[in-house]
Amino acid sequence: MPPITPLLDTVSSPADTRGLSIPELRQLADELRAETIDAVSQTGGHLGAGLGVVELTVALHHVYETPSDILIWDVGHQAYPHKILTGRRDRIRTLRQGDGLSGFTKRSESEYDPFGAAHAATSISAALGFAAARDQKGQDNKVVAVIGDGSMSAGMAYEAMNNACETTRQLTVILNDNDMSIAPPVGGMSAYMARLVSGGGYRSIRNLGKAVSKAFPKPIQEAARKAEEYARGMVTGGTFFEELGFYYVGPIDGHDMDALVHVLQNARNITDKPVLVHVVTQKGKGYAPAENAADKHHAVVKFDVVTGQQAKPAQTHAPSYTKVFAQELIKQAERDPKIVAITAAMPSGTGLDLFGERFPERTFDVGIAEQHAVTFAAGLAADGMKPFAAIYSTFLQRGYDQVVHDVAIQRLPVRFAMDRAGLVGADGATHAGSFDIGFMGALPGMVLMGPADEAELAHAVATAVAIDDRPSAFRYPRGEGTGAVIPALAEPLEIGKGRIVREGTAVAILSFGTRLAESLKAADMLAARGLSATVADARFAKPLDVDLVLRLAREHEALITVEEGATGGFGSFVLQALAEHGALDRGLKVRTLVLPDIFQDHDTPAAMYAQAGLDAEGIVRGALSALGVDNASAKGRRA
Amino acid sequence: MPPITPLLDTVSSPADTRGLSIPELRQLADELRAETIDAVSQTGGHLGAGLGVVELTVALHHVYETPSDILIWDVGHQAYPHKILTGRRDRIRTLRQGDGLSGFTKRSESEYDPFGAAHAATSISAALGFAAARDQKGQDNKVVAVIGDGSMSAGMAYEAMNNACETTRQLTVILNDNDMSIAPPVGGMSAYMARLVSGGGYRSIRNLGKAVSKAFPKPIQEAARKAEEYARGMVTGGTFFEELGFYYVGPIDGHDMDALVHVLQNARNITDKPVLVHVVTQKGKGYAPAENAADKHHAVVKFDVVTGQQAKPAQTHAPSYTKVFAQELIKQAERDPKIVAITAAMPSGTGLDLFGERFPERTFDVGIAEQHAVTFAAGLAADGMKPFAAIYSTFLQRGYDQVVHDVAIQRLPVRFAMDRAGLVGADGATHAGSFDIGFMGALPGMVLMGPADEAELAHAVATAVAIDDRPSAFRYPRGEGTGAVIPALAEPLEIGKGRIVREGTAVAILSFGTRLAESLKAADMLAARGLSATVADARFAKPLDVDLVLRLAREHEALITVEEGATGGFGSFVLQALAEHGALDRGLKVRTLVLPDIFQDHDTPAAMYAQAGLDAEGIVRGALSALGVDNASAKGRRA
Repeated sequence: MPPITPLLDTVSSPADTRGLSIPELRQLADELRAETIDAVSQTGGHLGAGLGVVELTVALHHVYETPSDILIWDVGHQAYPHKILTGRRDRIRTLRQGDGLSGFTKRSESEYDPFGAAHAATSISAALGFAAARDQKGQDNKVVAVIGDGSMSAGMAYEAMNNACETTRQLTVILNDNDMSIAPPVGGMSAYMARLVSGGGYRSIRNLGKAVSKAFPKPIQEAARKAEEYARGMVTGGTFFEELGFYYVGPIDGHDMDALVHVLQNARNITDKPVLVHVVTQKGKGYAPAENAADKHHAVVKFDVVTGQQAKPAQTHAPSYTKVFAQELIKQAERDPKIVAITAAMPSGTGLDLFGERFPERTFDVGIAEQHAVTFAAGLAADGMKPFAAIYSTFLQRGYDQVVHDVAIQRLPVRFAMDRAGLVGADGATHAGSFDIGFMGALPGMVLMGPADEAELAHAVATAVAIDDRPSAFRYPRGEGTGAVIPALAEPLEIGKGRIVREGTAVAILSFGTRLAESLKAADMLAARGLSATVADARFAKPLDVDLVLRLAREHEALITVEEGATGGFGSFVLQALAEHGALDRGLKVRTLVLPDIFQDHDTPAAMYAQAGLDAEGIVRGALSALGVDNASAKGRRA
Repeated sequence: MPPITPLLDTVSSPADTRGLSIPELRQLADELRAETIDAVSQTGGHLGAGLGVVELTVALHHVYETPSDILIWDVGHQAYPHKILTGRRDRIRTLRQGDGLSGFTKRSESEYDPFGAAHAATSISAALGFAAARDQKGQDNKVVAVIGDGSMSAGMAYEAMNNACETTRQLTVILNDNDMSIAPPVGGMSAYMARLVSGGGYRSIRNLGKAVSKAFPKPIQEAARKAEEYARGMVTGGTFFEELGFYYVGPIDGHDMDALVHVLQNARNITDKPVLVHVVTQKGKGYAPAENAADKHHAVVKFDVVTGQQAKPAQTHAPSYTKVFAQELIKQAERDPKIVAITAAMPSGTGLDLFGERFPERTFDVGIAEQHAVTFAAGLAADGMKPFAAIYSTFLQRGYDQVVHDVAIQRLPVRFAMDRAGLVGADGATHAGSFDIGFMGALPGMVLMGPADEAELAHAVATAVAIDDRPSAFRYPRGEGTGAVIPALAEPLEIGKGRIVREGTAVAILSFGTRLAESLKAADMLAARGLSATVADARFAKPLDVDLVLRLAREHEALITVEEGATGGFGSFVLQALAEHGALDRGLKVRTLVLPDIFQDHDTPAAMYAQAGLDAEGIVRGALSALGVDNASAKGRRA
């Protein structure tokens, strides 16, 4: 039963919040919270972060004149309440579903999403872009960015803060400090923010006026004094931010509507330099099951609103690739004390939480800091350790220069465990791991593996342990494996050698990665049409098994490559090898099946694979097209 | 005539400096400075930065037990004096020449270079890796990183500092503050450091003891008191660094050997948390022509030691691509007020200094901050501006995730001017722009141009101005153009259309980028052998001119692609298109000429192109090999 929301029902856009009183804004926040909980209980998704910013969301839209004022949410997974308030309430129960609302902010969804997000720490940079554009055009709309404390470990946030005072004189940065991003926060900055917050709690109304007066320039002091009786914030110093050229205000209680509205009203009026408002919120606020959960219901499946009980996940028949990776790495590390592991703020997402339980001293969570993660790993490797940097494919893009410059050029044996390679379902385009085969495979000296199933993944881990004279990487997808039996003791693979999994005659399907299972299904389907298919598992995109490629080319009329990656990857490497060895000179019906040249929107994995033509049906279509065979009448051909 | 260096002549390794007195260390520094100047006068290279750290170099090797203590120089272009002191004096006059010493630190050169560098701001991350490895192994060698103030604008430096206090308890970071990297520094951090320095100058000997006592823990206080009579530094606060968990010491005079040695001796003994020593140096110190030059002789060609007069550069017959880009952008910006330009600390390198003179308000130098640069540009584009982000190909690797996530997924019309694409001569592997065709060309919606000469570059700029519905990029190399006449008014090119430059019959050479001139030379050489070659200029790698590619394939026995980039780029896109359209089914002698699958060491451009097989001779070899023609006897074949 949907919640009763009489006030929210009257709000069709943020403009409708502007005439409301503080008590009404409080009521609106309560209703918005209930609506958010109800919606996510039906769709699953990110819950805790959104609940933490309900009051902030209401206060921001009340104070700032969105959409002409520019409001940018960092990451965007906390923006469900924002979506409800900005004309998307009627679609909020389609969140993260095919053709439904995105789980993040998205420009194409709404004029209230001026800048999309999903990766962390982009908001201040984008906001400065909007501010500079405004200043160029001589307009006076305001720009505000909301960034979490977790994102403050990212160098990008620092780069932007370092530029703020030179770029513009009007920018409000809301530091949404819930002392927790996905995992507990990391580093000196986090400790610093904690000291700011613990430096005496929220100061009394009486003291605020003076503190704000000190922080703000003259014209603002007057407004600040007027706000005195409402605001509950305090100014404790914030020297770090002040040294970068910001006014610092805070910390203030992010669930106190009085304080929020009045401090934001002041902040909005500051036009002589950027201001940072330090707002302390509680992840999962106002929903007991979330407040009480260790992860504050960061991301949930469907759940019962009354009990908070989450639906049992669908029956799985195999462990996730992530877990297989972690378990194999633990096994290897038990035998090899040089193995250490690095994560960039994703201990549970990468399975390194398990590794960390077993080897706390050998596990490094560096925060949302992929650039540092990679070069830190390079330093470890340069001094003889065996570092495994477990980073999602999409986030490794953040550390690409470091992979090139600090790892590959120096030929240092850093091992890259590239999780979430390929399509990722509900998280959509921003999280897809589409480009790693190309950007890693282009690097001289790199060994690039694409294990076909979880047993192969275990072997890939063992192989990476053994590769001690150059960098290596292996990629594996989100989700569960095929149920393959994992070997008790994984063995290093022969570098650069693939394997033939099924022998046939007419067409060769050469798979790199976990599309092997679909390739085998495709071979069955082709057999049913009288077409005999060889299926091979390349195992390595680099070094490529050129002998295998040439043999497949020689012995078949057609060769199909299959990979879960963009153009310029495995298929390219195969084509270049074929060309170089003259294997195309006399003709080969070769086709490369890759991800389509679009950013695929979020949907079910099955729907996304079908769209990409990377399911068995798509592979069959590719083979038939290469052979020039009509889809209906293949029977008998070279069987 | 080489300088007279009696003391330096006795120093064959850093160990020889350890018994020297302060006056002797001063003399050693003077001789080292003279030797550095003399060497660079013969080789050219980076001079100002090295001269600024002569005393620091001597003091570091005197105090730290290199090479078992780990000394990491950020960027590494200031390490010429370090190379002279660490056993490479006999090769110092081969700097930046083929088979000679690298212009940066390099692991393969010396055990005193534990971690190579060239891109900025990697040193603290790498140092933390070494520190963590040491701690894992239970060793007690010390780790020290030297980083310039310019690198402090890079997010990576911040990510590392944020991790320092959690990762290790012994790390010395030397902040080498010369208030100038290549260009004047940028941002709030820079202003902060200036305030630290200007806060009263170097404090008197008397006051230092107290200040150090406050900063350091008990056991160090004693040592600090002993240092009192020598040290000239002071402690002014350094709250920013202290908040991140460092001890802060400084600023101290980086040319005062007393102060350096004694402060470093104290710093080396600190093992309870990381320490940052703020050292103020003068770029070009001790060499009047450098001290008096605006750029402090950052990078020089050969020069006369006495006068400082640099050799006239070799006669050029054409402007550099960089300059052509800048001049065309200025022309366009005069007609279109929405055009703005962004550089990441490379105003002169990218030619945006010229743009900035003409349009100071429309030029943004964001510091060494490519991540921010790209997303800042995305924000500008999202609000209707036409941003040109001029970033070297190799440095754009730093902003790759931002290109994917903030620009391409949102299809925002940011224009990327990718300078230094391809080989870069003396700067070597770390600065080569090898991978951009692949990593940019893989992105859905991207328009990727490779102008063939300076006239085409002007057209590419005009084309990028006109592309307002999606991102675009164009790449161009270091150095001068071909002398092509630059049009008075450049016109937008038709998107995705190449052109045939020379008609032939036997072999088609399809060039992407500035290797077109060599391709034409190759066609002449083939003609001399009786082989008629078509030469085409692809202009676009994406969208690819598939009609042109298919026509070339149809009308020629062989097709050669030529590009100055790694595998997975233009040649791959051509092969994939050929495969997809069945153009390989009946045979095509196709070869892709790309950069070799190695990181090419620095050398003359001509030598590097020859090694890569991307000069006319290499293209001829590729064509002959594809045609199956003996190199000696081509005459008459399908001419």
